Amino acid sequence: MTTDRPSAEPGTQRIEAFSDGVFAIAITLLIIEIGVPLIESGESLGEALLELWPSYGAYVLSFTTIGIYWANHHAYFKLFLRTDHVFLMINVFFLMSIAFLPFPTAVLAEYLQEEDQRQTAATLYTAGLLFPAFAWLSIWLYASIGKRLTDPRLDPAYVRSLTAQYLFSNAVFGAAVIASFWSPITALSICVGFTLLYLLPPRRPRYVGSG
Amino acid sequence: MTTDRPSAEPGTQRIEAFSDGVFAIAITLLIIEIGVPLIESGESLGEALLELWPSYGAYVLSFTTIGIYWANHHAYFKLFLRTDHVFLMINVFFLMSIAFLPFPTAVLAEYLQEEDQRQTAATLYTAGLLFPAFAWLSIWLYASIGKRLTDPRLDPAYVRSLTAQYLFSNAVFGAAVIASFWSPITALSICVGFTLLYLLPPRRPRYVGSG
Amino acid sequence: MTTDRPSAEPGTQRIEAFSDGVFAIAITLLIIEIGVPLIESGESLGEALLELWPSYGAYVLSFTTIGIYWANHHAYFKLFLRTDHVFLMINVFFLMSIAFLPFPTAVLAEYLQEEDQRQTAATLYTAGLLFPAFAWLSIWLYASIGKRLTDPRLDPAYVRSLTAQYLFSNAVFGAAVIASFWSPITALSICVGFTLLYLLPPRRPRYVGSG
Amino acid sequence: MTTDRPSAEPGTQRIEAFSDGVFAIAITLLIIEIGVPLIESGESLGEALLELWPSYGAYVLSFTTIGIYWANHHAYFKLFLRTDHVFLMINVFFLMSIAFLPFPTAVLAEYLQEEDQRQTAATLYTAGLLFPAFAWLSIWLYASIGKRLTDPRLDPAYVRSLTAQYLFSNAVFGAAVIASFWSPITALSICVGFTLLYLLPPRRPRYVGSG
Repeated sequence: MTTDRPSAEPGTQRIEAFSDGVFAIAITLLIIEIGVPLIESGESLGEALLELWPSYGAYVLSFTTIGIYWANHHAYFKLFLRTDHVFLMINVFFLMSIAFLPFPTAVLAEYLQEEDQRQTAATLYTAGLLFPAFAWLSIWLYASIGKRLTDPRLDPAYVRSLTAQYLFSNAVFGAAVIASFWSPITALSICVGFTLLYLLPPRRPRYVGSG
Repeated sequence: MTTDRPSAEPGTQRIEAFSDGVFAIAITLLIIEIGVPLIESGESLGEALLELWPSYGAYVLSFTTIGIYWANHHAYFKLFLRTDHVFLMINVFFLMSIAFLPFPTAVLAEYLQEEDQRQTAATLYTAGLLFPAFAWLSIWLYASIGKRLTDPRLDPAYVRSLTAQYLFSNAVFGAAVIASFWSPITALSICVGFTLLYLLPPRRPRYVGSG
Repeated sequence: MTTDRPSAEPGTQRIEAFSDGVFAIAITLLIIEIGVPLIESGESLGEALLELWPSYGAYVLSFTTIGIYWANHHAYFKLFLRTDHVFLMINVFFLMSIAFLPFPTAVLAEYLQEEDQRQTAATLYTAGLLFPAFAWLSIWLYASIGKRLTDPRLDPAYVRSLTAQYLFSNAVFGAAVIASFWSPITALSICVGFTLLYLLPPRRPRYVGSG
Repeated sequence: MTTDRPSAEPGTQRIEAFSDGVFAIAITLLIIEIGVPLIESGESLGEALLELWPSYGAYVLSFTTIGIYWANHHAYFKLFLRTDHVFLMINVFFLMSIAFLPFPTAVLAEYLQEEDQRQTAATLYTAGLLFPAFAWLSIWLYASIGKRLTDPRLDPAYVRSLTAQYLFSNAVFGAAVIASFWSPITALSICVGFTLLYLLPPRRPRYVGSG
């Protein structure tokens, strides 16, 4: 007689619901890092609002990034048939990388315009984008190597192409981190360009035996 | 043999759950923009609390606005039978417009009583209301043009009347933005009046063949 | 042929999910109103933490209050078979009263120990507790009068007893608001005592024909 | 004829959804306690960011702690077949202990490096970890004693082993609180070590009659 109920190896439904909660909160919390500008009498609120442009830019980029991870989390968690405790913990690690994003976003917004600090702020921010890319790669490798948690009918070529794609993402963000030491603007441009690329539709899953 | 599972073109359930999360958080976060008044010894807390009336007013208006969008999001997402990646991304853009609202709300609350800054604060706030109206129109047009995602049995006259209604909303908030440059109070009154109008029940969907 | 789909008059599931989101966020946001004490060198962090006792007390009372409303929201929404647009809007009004609670909680925590301001802070806080009691009464009266949304098999005596209970709650919190002008401590004691009373189990629904 | 509907004694689904919301918000809110460092001209942002290491450490430890409680909450709530009002209220008390965690986390991050205050900050933080351990023990004892809410087929030896494990957790965190008065670093090391231990998979439920 088995000691385990079917419920002891749950599907991914609850982990997705919890992850969605963290995504929704992290994406919405981004706004509270944009503080109301405090202006002195005689100064112009309009100018003060315009000077916040790095805040708006960082807000839009981080919001889009979290939105894309949310969309991908959904699209690819459908390929996972099972979870286990280690997978749960890697997902917590991934969620930490998402929930952390408001901090480098706020630092970038605050210091992008200060020439002395721009480089540090850009390094922190690009590292803040590398962090979820790396955590996501960890999720994928843990789940897909040896078909540990993935649907066994997934086309191996499709699995390899996703692995290659996630490795490439890590390389790009890693390059951006390194580039940030020489040229913060180049580093941030790489991130913006790569994020725009991710707005394109994800590849649809292919299964063994499909033409 | 098809390469796509039914799950590859999901319904709108998960997008609604995620959107509900963002709605719930944005609407609840509004309160933390109302700071506890710091008073000196000898001053009156009662007076300080009363002087916060623009904060309460902006809070109620923004809360009601997000509440109405939530209700509409639910009512009209029922008309969408499918989603696709572009639709997902437009919805992320719409959620950005909702999550952004606490910022112009806080700026309006802070500067409504300062005569020099009132105009700028009102312009930002009315633009903050135009933003989700425009994003919502984008959702609707993308989904309904050529019946891309909508139920094909929807009465075309009903679809046209909704399109007209959303275009009209954009015109009203656009007019409020323009009006804000001459008269902030007029601009805000337009927004309040138009929001009250939206408290009325939405029109029920009509289908082809129904009398 | 009817123009309405069954889905056009939804049950209460989605309104409950959205309300749960607001409850969960409002209850969790309470903590960020307790700021980390800033102490000078030579001062004691321990004493500074102990001096925050009104913050802890207000935190526990508000947390418990929102927790109770959440439990009641669930217990009694089971009695509602339908929703309509007006009901949705009254529920948004109720959620506003829940989401507002962190503000009077923070004001009470800040000014409870300042003799000059204690009365005002207590009046605001008791009014902050009257607000959801009143909004909840509105939900109940709208849904139950003429069995507009409630299960028609509910025992009328049971419905009347709930109406009486909610009217009594409003009377108690109303009395606390009035009492706060003379004795803030009496007013807050009424609120604490009444909240403890609500920790008791709610009455179970009784249906017509049941002994 | 019974006066109660099956729905009057609900399963744990809704309590889990609400708890998940609080977990997701508390875990995501942790980041806003890490403020953007304000630096003077001539100072280095990089150094200021590195000096925040206690914030990062406290963030990771608290994030992991909440993540583990979330995973356990799910794993063990599956063993509960029923809820009642008292159980609901104990769960609210447990959620209070989770939602409270950002506060001691922020205090620890702020004062870990100040020698005079380190002990107090460590005592508060270890007490902040004892609090949910104690609340969780309360949930478990209330549910399992006399099989009040648990699956009656659960192996009594398994139930006793969980009781022992939770009592042990309370002893460990209690010891950390006491140790914090002599050596804050020892106390925090106990907490880190014990948390790492909890990253191991939880024991699977065993049922009566299973080998």
